[in-house]
Amino acid sequence: MLKLDPEKAELSPEEVEWFKEATRRCARRIILATTLAGSGHPGGSLSSLSLLLMVYALAKVDPQKPRHPERDRVVVSHGHISPGVYSVLCEYGFFPEEPFLMEFRRAGSAFAGHVEQAVPGVEWNTGNLGQGLSAACGMARAIKLKGLPAKVFCLMGDGEQQKGQVIEARRWAVKFGLNNLCVLIDYNRLQIGGDIYQVMPQDLRAEIEATGWNVIEVNGHDFQALYRALRNFIRGEVPHPERPTAILAHTVMGKGISFMENDAKWHGAPLSSELCKKALSELGFDPEELDRLAEKRKNYPVSFPHQPHEPESVAIDPGEPVLYEPDLKTDCRSAYGKALLSLAEKNNLPGKPPKVLGLTCDLESSVKMTAFKKHSPQAFHESGIQEHHTATVSGALSKEGFLVFFSTFGVFGVDEVYNQLRLNALNHTALKVVCTHLGVDVGEDGPTHQCVDYLGLLLSLKGFDIYLPADPNQTDHIIRFVALQPGNVFVGMGRSKVPVITDEEGQPFFGKAYRFQPGRADWIRRGKDGTFVSYGPMVHRCLTACEILKEKGYEVGLLNIASIRPFPREDLLSAARSGPVVVVEDHLVETGLGALCAKELGLSGISAKIKLKGFESYTTSGKPDELFARAGLDPESLAQEMEALIKA
Amino acid sequence: MLKLDPEKAELSPEEVEWFKEATRRCARRIILATTLAGSGHPGGSLSSLSLLLMVYALAKVDPQKPRHPERDRVVVSHGHISPGVYSVLCEYGFFPEEPFLMEFRRAGSAFAGHVEQAVPGVEWNTGNLGQGLSAACGMARAIKLKGLPAKVFCLMGDGEQQKGQVIEARRWAVKFGLNNLCVLIDYNRLQIGGDIYQVMPQDLRAEIEATGWNVIEVNGHDFQALYRALRNFIRGEVPHPERPTAILAHTVMGKGISFMENDAKWHGAPLSSELCKKALSELGFDPEELDRLAEKRKNYPVSFPHQPHEPESVAIDPGEPVLYEPDLKTDCRSAYGKALLSLAEKNNLPGKPPKVLGLTCDLESSVKMTAFKKHSPQAFHESGIQEHHTATVSGALSKEGFLVFFSTFGVFGVDEVYNQLRLNALNHTALKVVCTHLGVDVGEDGPTHQCVDYLGLLLSLKGFDIYLPADPNQTDHIIRFVALQPGNVFVGMGRSKVPVITDEEGQPFFGKAYRFQPGRADWIRRGKDGTFVSYGPMVHRCLTACEILKEKGYEVGLLNIASIRPFPREDLLSAARSGPVVVVEDHLVETGLGALCAKELGLSGISAKIKLKGFESYTTSGKPDELFARAGLDPESLAQEMEALIKA
Repeated sequence: MLKLDPEKAELSPEEVEWFKEATRRCARRIILATTLAGSGHPGGSLSSLSLLLMVYALAKVDPQKPRHPERDRVVVSHGHISPGVYSVLCEYGFFPEEPFLMEFRRAGSAFAGHVEQAVPGVEWNTGNLGQGLSAACGMARAIKLKGLPAKVFCLMGDGEQQKGQVIEARRWAVKFGLNNLCVLIDYNRLQIGGDIYQVMPQDLRAEIEATGWNVIEVNGHDFQALYRALRNFIRGEVPHPERPTAILAHTVMGKGISFMENDAKWHGAPLSSELCKKALSELGFDPEELDRLAEKRKNYPVSFPHQPHEPESVAIDPGEPVLYEPDLKTDCRSAYGKALLSLAEKNNLPGKPPKVLGLTCDLESSVKMTAFKKHSPQAFHESGIQEHHTATVSGALSKEGFLVFFSTFGVFGVDEVYNQLRLNALNHTALKVVCTHLGVDVGEDGPTHQCVDYLGLLLSLKGFDIYLPADPNQTDHIIRFVALQPGNVFVGMGRSKVPVITDEEGQPFFGKAYRFQPGRADWIRRGKDGTFVSYGPMVHRCLTACEILKEKGYEVGLLNIASIRPFPREDLLSAARSGPVVVVEDHLVETGLGALCAKELGLSGISAKIKLKGFESYTTSGKPDELFARAGLDPESLAQEMEALIKA
Repeated sequence: MLKLDPEKAELSPEEVEWFKEATRRCARRIILATTLAGSGHPGGSLSSLSLLLMVYALAKVDPQKPRHPERDRVVVSHGHISPGVYSVLCEYGFFPEEPFLMEFRRAGSAFAGHVEQAVPGVEWNTGNLGQGLSAACGMARAIKLKGLPAKVFCLMGDGEQQKGQVIEARRWAVKFGLNNLCVLIDYNRLQIGGDIYQVMPQDLRAEIEATGWNVIEVNGHDFQALYRALRNFIRGEVPHPERPTAILAHTVMGKGISFMENDAKWHGAPLSSELCKKALSELGFDPEELDRLAEKRKNYPVSFPHQPHEPESVAIDPGEPVLYEPDLKTDCRSAYGKALLSLAEKNNLPGKPPKVLGLTCDLESSVKMTAFKKHSPQAFHESGIQEHHTATVSGALSKEGFLVFFSTFGVFGVDEVYNQLRLNALNHTALKVVCTHLGVDVGEDGPTHQCVDYLGLLLSLKGFDIYLPADPNQTDHIIRFVALQPGNVFVGMGRSKVPVITDEEGQPFFGKAYRFQPGRADWIRRGKDGTFVSYGPMVHRCLTACEILKEKGYEVGLLNIASIRPFPREDLLSAARSGPVVVVEDHLVETGLGALCAKELGLSGISAKIKLKGFESYTTSGKPDELFARAGLDPESLAQEMEALIKA
């Protein structure tokens, strides 16, 4: 195991020799692991190998303390080169080679097909190309915010430079001065489909330079040259020391195995046993080792412990709830903005790194982050119209000991970046996604902006709790609650002003005494004739419907389900047992709360009268009240619907 | 109304005068429409106005035949400038100004907040920034494939140049030689958050040039200069005539109204009545007109007819189904590849434009498009690792009289591009999205590649039918069926080989006599003791479970639901009425077919025994059979589950 001191101008001959030998040892592991597994990506693993070895020789990482908070970070964005990464981590003592060779790609193993941070030394699960650089940006920004000297090294494939998210990340890195970030591109010029420039024309160097980065081109298999390039980055000896650096490392796919070199077919296919043995011989190893290992693997239990990288904790003072009085009509997003400011005032203290961060995509004033920005300019991250990058960078920041809020409209924060949130969840992030302008409540901006499908998507997004406040008071309570909650949470709200929800005495329902509890629903009204089940901007409409029905002599209850996940199943079933249920939402009926309630009834075996009210499909531009009325979601129509169901 | 002949070297003084007057007339409409509606985007409408007027003066479009197949296309990517677009379309006679001024942004009106192709002259609904250029690429490529001389003009905002999808589109345009495509960027240097370069540093010209485009910079309010730039594009008088051209048009936000100029606050806010009157006076119009129009608008019915742009039809010969015999074990994706080749052989004839197109993102061989590519190289579009662009460009191509298949893995074709598919649906596309590698069946590639949430997302995606074949025979039938089906369809399948599903006599269930029917389920087996409900790669496992149970004396049925949307509700209810139901799927139980079935039961009031079998969350790398067994989805476990439910 080699550790290099970047003060030295160049590598000694012994060090160069060590790299050559380490390359040989790691190449053995790569071809063995993939052939033993019968699948995997040896080609790129071999071309990236020299980069991985050099980076780990220079990075300040301790295999004994792989999560040390002041470590350098190594992110591998082209996660399919997992055999290369695991081989190099063995070489540097993060774990022995046996469990890797025995367990690679087996069911339940930490040594997965694409790198996962269940393995010590791995910082970020990747596999969907183009997201790793955004994660690396989050780490580099976190390091800057904390005032640490650590560096972030991000290895990437050349094919993945085609993904649009990559250029978003490059610009963001420049905006936030991430000169502690170095990208190493494995420039082997081959992707699955063949020559990268045949697949998609691209002037890679020009594109990177256009974003203002330092660019260094080297022969990626020349250890001396690679060392100098990384040393220049580490010492800031680059044309623009205030900016990030990209090393374009010219490499050879399948490097080191004569018959694999420069052949794209080895991108994602292992060698046969015969070819594997041939390769072992070429490398100077005993070819028969393959059979011995294969035999051993048959009965080897999957047992290497998963060591997931949980978010660094952050101590947050949630402050005191504020009270919005019934005579006030405001929107939930303003209440969110106030709660966020309050969190900043309590936790982002002068002279210290901020604890509460906010990110948005050119919608600062709409999502009510302006007061937060004024209070904590360093904690606010205007990230431009670059939602994919922002979703990932927010996730990465949330693992670094910050309370991170990512806010934008529902269509951008759910529909556009669903897959980025999914990868965040796989990475055990602790992100608070707060989306405004959900539903048809967005109004005149029309169907492209009417996010009427968020629950359908979010219910498929494992690892996120889902809260939807009914009024400004509940918003305030929920935001302060999630500030203390570990893990990922989605909080959603509409655009329009809503009245304060009151109890039977006319006092705020979600007053000072209220405490938000996940998995609990709120009985806004109790009634014996039927129950409205609702959330968000439809709750006050249902409340008016209850009042209309009261005039007619009906006692109808109103159950507010602000906690969609975890779901308050028992409250729903108790409503269903007592009479007809009308579920009302600003969402597609096919996949919203109504569908969820009907499903729970179906599973429970309770036969109840249930009616789902929402939208059948996308609708038009228009004022929300008009659009709701057209869909039968105004209080009068809802009251009629309930009365009909009661009489049915 | 002015029509210009690009043969002329420059505009006459009268023509320049006409543009000045037309600008004044359109500015009036812009500020009136937004103030009357009480919302909208006047600032960018005014800065883009000169570009819109010039483009429509040069574009070969006929207001009497706005859908003429040989027309030039004008795509407005920054759809929020709808007041500008509608004003200019009035000016050029596409419709009178009255319905626009009276209906703009009202519920049910065609004149929506963001441009919609329900309005004659509008080619593509936009509003989520960064997608319009991809749509324009699809139109330009379609024109090339048909051998037409038409041009495509795409107007864009400068802020939206931040979106990663834009650079994906730029590269694709170069790869496919779209020199008939001209982008005009409204370079007013302001976005919602203020100065575009404060929001996100970007060297716009360098970035565009890095992708190889021709770039022309002009003063966007200098009609003579703008004319020359467009004339150069039209005549191919650009440095690289084989490539697309971008015109960077320097403009002024709020141009023409003194107090609006260069103020970002007018991006998305209308003038007050008072300021509107002041602006009308400045423009030389009667300020009192506002009040008269406001009064008239109060009682003006929303009545302008929506004129949605339906896809151009294409006559397809679906060919004859092939038969996979029971002794053959292959994967559904190979059957898809063969069916696609067969469609190409029947419909892509030598010397004629191809009718069947295929697009993929660096996964040609995995999605089995190689034979198609060899047969119809011109019809195959390798689009690189650029899924967002590819989803949109595929949608645009599907409206142009082609049968378009977009294929990639489930995580990329659903999770990553959900929002692009949503915008396609709003645009009435006719796209066939065929995803392979769905579910845990993807195996060792692990959780980042295991798309276990596709149904949750697709059920929220209105405007797409959803079909999931159970074996190669059903795949062949479904692919040929969708080749004739109008509108959007999703077809999904796993990665692994599956046996041919057989009937009780051992003959292929989906044989020559079978006809796929949307909304119909397949009773693979009938049984009186209970029913497995399943689809895709779990059907053969359920069939084995039925056989295990038969040995034990149970007669258990198997219902294959290949048509998830439309949903065969009656078949499910009939199964539920006759005994316990176990729903089995390679999907999250929370939002898959099981949830859908339970919901239908809940809504029906039928109290049935139902058990959902699938995945509770993301799982690990591993061989599919092992992973299924770990989740209790192997035939033995399924048989036990059914037996327990029968006995319960």
